[in-house]
Amino acid sequence: MDRAIALQLVKKQLTEHRYVHTLGVMESSLRLAAQYGADLKKAELAAIFHDYAKFRPKEEMKQVVIDESLPLDLLDFGNELLHAPVGSILVKREAGIHDKEILSAIYYHTTGNGRMSQLEKIVFLADYIEPNRQFPGVEEVRDAAERNLNEACLLAVKNTVQFLMKQNQKIYPLTIETYNGLQEEIRRKK
Amino acid sequence: MDRAIALQLVKKQLTEHRYVHTLGVMESSLRLAAQYGADLKKAELAAIFHDYAKFRPKEEMKQVVIDESLPLDLLDFGNELLHAPVGSILVKREAGIHDKEILSAIYYHTTGNGRMSQLEKIVFLADYIEPNRQFPGVEEVRDAAERNLNEACLLAVKNTVQFLMKQNQKIYPLTIETYNGLQEEIRRKK
Repeated sequence: MDRAIALQLVKKQLTEHRYVHTLGVMESSLRLAAQYGADLKKAELAAIFHDYAKFRPKEEMKQVVIDESLPLDLLDFGNELLHAPVGSILVKREAGIHDKEILSAIYYHTTGNGRMSQLEKIVFLADYIEPNRQFPGVEEVRDAAERNLNEACLLAVKNTVQFLMKQNQKIYPLTIETYNGLQEEIRRKK
Repeated sequence: MDRAIALQLVKKQLTEHRYVHTLGVMESSLRLAAQYGADLKKAELAAIFHDYAKFRPKEEMKQVVIDESLPLDLLDFGNELLHAPVGSILVKREAGIHDKEILSAIYYHTTGNGRMSQLEKIVFLADYIEPNRQFPGVEEVRDAAERNLNEACLLAVKNTVQFLMKQNQKIYPLTIETYNGLQEEIRRKK
């Protein structure tokens, strides 16, 4: 799918603020893909569509979880998590994207998973460090992204866990699988 | 079982340092049980036996995991976790303790679980705050233990997660279930 058409489809789904964020994720995703030798087109499309479901009503998202047999425990963890797996379903259904690597990068862009693909890591990280993001710790992750994809993702997931604990929010188990998987991968490569 | 007999059985299994720690856990466990209205005898015995398997050879512990169909993922997380569930099995086998609440408090004393009993919380917390423990954050947990059992356990599990992340050690999934379970329980009671 052409970038312009993809952006047009996504713009209708998002607020202006979220669309600007999406453009930032696209930019960061392309930069990371070029740097780490990933498929540029897939990195671009996954980034453009990553927040496609962000503003769907909660009831609609719940229905998608049930209809598509997504993990039911997603329903115990609020919209912040739900939009990513639900997004991967709706992007397939409504935008006709069928590439499994792209859909999986959308699915896991918030939580990651225990055995992340390179594309999943790129979109996960791009979402975290895109130029519009401003929060404590983001500069460190940006610096790490220049050097090592796994180390940067690990830093991002550590910050996320710390943030959730500080806010007394629950932590989705997959987030810890991501942390453990990255620790193992980093150790194996040393 | 009488305290003196229990201590005699346990002393043989431990180093002097670990035995002193065990006496500290017993003291803290009894204090917490009195404060929160738990069974004193069970709190005492669970505390005395909590580290029973601490110095068993790793191979023996692995064999217990296999023979008793304990979760196999325990084997991916090092001795620090293994001694607790293996201990609950050996305490039953070798010391003849059959009380399920006591055995469960031993089993979960390192990780906790998503729906902890009061006794499990008491032994988990006593192990963390006993008088010989000295590490950053322990005083805060001791203070919290004076006021609220769930809040104190939550603080302990948060510190543990933070410590593990700082050390780049993997986090056992049950630890996050403990965190999430405590968050839910605290929210329900507000």
